[in-house]
Amino acid sequence: MTARHVLAIDIGGTKLAAGVVAEDGRQLSRGRVPTDVAKGPESAVERLVALCRDVIAQAGVPISLIGIGCGGPLDPVRGVTLTPPSLPGWEEFPLVARVQDALGVKAWLDNDANAAALGEHRFGAGRGYQHLVYFTVSTGVGGGVILDGRLYPGSTGNAAELGHIQVSYDGWPCPCGGQGCVEAFASGTYIAARARVTASPRLIALAGSRDAITTEHVVAAVRAGDVEAKKVWDDSVRVLAAGVASAINAFNPQRVIVGGGVTSAGPLLFEPLSRLALGRTMKSLAVGVDVVPAELGDQVGVMGAAAVALSHL
Amino acid sequence: MTARHVLAIDIGGTKLAAGVVAEDGRQLSRGRVPTDVAKGPESAVERLVALCRDVIAQAGVPISLIGIGCGGPLDPVRGVTLTPPSLPGWEEFPLVARVQDALGVKAWLDNDANAAALGEHRFGAGRGYQHLVYFTVSTGVGGGVILDGRLYPGSTGNAAELGHIQVSYDGWPCPCGGQGCVEAFASGTYIAARARVTASPRLIALAGSRDAITTEHVVAAVRAGDVEAKKVWDDSVRVLAAGVASAINAFNPQRVIVGGGVTSAGPLLFEPLSRLALGRTMKSLAVGVDVVPAELGDQVGVMGAAAVALSHL
Repeated sequence: MTARHVLAIDIGGTKLAAGVVAEDGRQLSRGRVPTDVAKGPESAVERLVALCRDVIAQAGVPISLIGIGCGGPLDPVRGVTLTPPSLPGWEEFPLVARVQDALGVKAWLDNDANAAALGEHRFGAGRGYQHLVYFTVSTGVGGGVILDGRLYPGSTGNAAELGHIQVSYDGWPCPCGGQGCVEAFASGTYIAARARVTASPRLIALAGSRDAITTEHVVAAVRAGDVEAKKVWDDSVRVLAAGVASAINAFNPQRVIVGGGVTSAGPLLFEPLSRLALGRTMKSLAVGVDVVPAELGDQVGVMGAAAVALSHL
Repeated sequence: MTARHVLAIDIGGTKLAAGVVAEDGRQLSRGRVPTDVAKGPESAVERLVALCRDVIAQAGVPISLIGIGCGGPLDPVRGVTLTPPSLPGWEEFPLVARVQDALGVKAWLDNDANAAALGEHRFGAGRGYQHLVYFTVSTGVGGGVILDGRLYPGSTGNAAELGHIQVSYDGWPCPCGGQGCVEAFASGTYIAARARVTASPRLIALAGSRDAITTEHVVAAVRAGDVEAKKVWDDSVRVLAAGVASAINAFNPQRVIVGGGVTSAGPLLFEPLSRLALGRTMKSLAVGVDVVPAELGDQVGVMGAAAVALSHL
């Protein structure tokens, strides 16, 4: 039997990426163009379709299906973006219809965190597991859940908003409308924002100015023994650990995978996160579970979108 | 076609209940005996089996399957209780094998909260819904999740420990080993324990003594305008609301059903709980969702166990 191939599309606020991926995960071609959000979705889709034609021609194989990963919230059933904060102007945009009409191949859409969970399950740290919880800790905190080898969709395809488990019921407001959400403490955005408030002269010097402080600077300052930076970092890790423990208690997975930009901190994140999260999980649910780094790195967008398509093959 | 019937068994720390239930939910017979936990599981099963023979004889119909609901944690696959806090001495007890051997009918076991979720889905407030989150708020706080009309089991059948979503990441310890769990604030046990600390003379008078204060007394004091009792109650409702919002964000249900003894507070609980929970849920996940009281009341044990059996017919 000949291997089947899918077209994988990753739509972000900054760039549009596309690639042709074989069932076994080999990438035959790939490319990217800027999103240019200010020009609106029709313009972006025009450039995206040109990019897709390009990578399909490069790959030189027929495409069985298209998978699209995109920032949520979105409606995977209707194939429409709803109100994605990363894509202003894309409200109720019929992304799947536009892509299908232009390329003549059936397309499937899911949010980027769900796509990443499918990608890690098929090609990354989740291979061989049937029950997974995936967290992405980046500008925001998102999630995806694999149950019995399939994505857990919930009633409208918007389940697994694990960044909005509320680990501080009387804590500060989250832009989502909630309060004390994991994302409002432990996303890259909030780690940096919190560190700016209490920054030591060392951390400010590291970053150039108080306003320039990022999570990478916080991590560097922690490594250099900075006490104030360590307070923020430790608190963020405890918040994430409470979120991971809650997700294990709720979903009963075999493994928790954590990806996203903040995980570039490596063992500085994973050693305490794994220890604290499993330590505060119910014993009957912690047995045999581990908390591990994602494996797909910066390929997660395209490989996740490929996994979305492959899950429908 | 003749209606099929199941034997439903509800095992609690205080009583053992059994009944014969038809597919449509009619109870043909029922009865109960004390658990007498101190006498151990073999003695309890002996009395349980006698009770079962009794209710089967009363019903006078053949039994297709047996469903058992029991306090967790347990292993539904092996049919064994693990370390149920409500049943000391029942560690690794082969409950399903004992019941099957004695009665000669195939039996299925699930924890009481999962059984209650199945019961509400089939016979109660969840009829007609395919995606439900169920909370029970009683001595402890438990949960069950229905996805696509079926129980969400997770990898080992222990999913949906919704009382152990951790809504206060730096909060006080929970007996489960976690920290800041919903159960450690908002269970009947903890509502009463917290109220004892700050009890007003009025609340103490209501209960007879500080040590005698229960959640019912707290509710009565709130109704009578007691400020200290209201503080504890309001805080407990906020904790529950954060747990419910987290569960909606995680599981994306169509409806949240709340049962258990504490819900006898009625609108005093449900009005603020529903408003606060949906107010702090992500907008895209709150649309069309409601938070409603369970309908099975004190029949939930037997009807839940019946639903466990019927889900395997």
